[in-house]
Amino acid sequence: MSDVDAPTDHSGLRVMSTEECLDRLASAGIGRLGFIVAGEVVVLPVHHLVHGVDVYFRTSGGSKIEAASDHDPVGFEVDEYDRATVTGWSVTLTGVASLVDEDDLVHELEALDTAPWPVGDRTDSVWVRVRPDQISGRELLPH
Amino acid sequence: MSDVDAPTDHSGLRVMSTEECLDRLASAGIGRLGFIVAGEVVVLPVHHLVHGVDVYFRTSGGSKIEAASDHDPVGFEVDEYDRATVTGWSVTLTGVASLVDEDDLVHELEALDTAPWPVGDRTDSVWVRVRPDQISGRELLPH
Repeated sequence: MSDVDAPTDHSGLRVMSTEECLDRLASAGIGRLGFIVAGEVVVLPVHHLVHGVDVYFRTSGGSKIEAASDHDPVGFEVDEYDRATVTGWSVTLTGVASLVDEDDLVHELEALDTAPWPVGDRTDSVWVRVRPDQISGRELLPH
Repeated sequence: MSDVDAPTDHSGLRVMSTEECLDRLASAGIGRLGFIVAGEVVVLPVHHLVHGVDVYFRTSGGSKIEAASDHDPVGFEVDEYDRATVTGWSVTLTGVASLVDEDDLVHELEALDTAPWPVGDRTDSVWVRVRPDQISGRELLPH
């Protein structure tokens, strides 16, 4: 499908297919997790990876994120913007977070994890799974 | 203060001062708003500006964001990462969102707004204020 035929939303942004959303989610190195702590909404960047249909990232044990990973609702977003060309895209999803407690899965994730970013003491870290229930994406095309 | 003396958190990231957080918040063109809609946490990118101590952005009337702007708790985040050099920073805040209904302030914001990003039909848009109650920032320095 050419861009000319692409569906657009009320702001004129191109609406991505679910498949494209998942591709962009997987290729983005950094995403932002939104979660609730004590009635406040917190948004923090995490280095994530996609495995199967889920998003995973590692966080320090005892962190605010860990506290919000007991099957709590979360949001997750990736994007890219270029101010010079005024183009960009974003993919956002809502889902539920849970701690990964299966040893086999932890080993799989560690094999997949090519994070260049340090995350502090890895012996103290936990993996968090975000299972998406809704995902959508928009792209701002060149004018 | 040199980087060597800078305070770091448990992950070894440099902790920014509040002043530096506000500077970076103001210079970032795109931020991500986290808000709650029907029990779900949604994270969406917005083009924002800083005026006084508050963060402002424009959104379409009738949007999910507008619905969450009735003095509801929100989170807001800006960041920048460079995968090549493995450096980056983020600033995150929690606060309360409200719709701007003062005509004078709307005129001030429109004068300040240099957004290159289209936002759909501007006659149908509203300004949202985020008043921060907590702000913090971290920087990942070169190794």
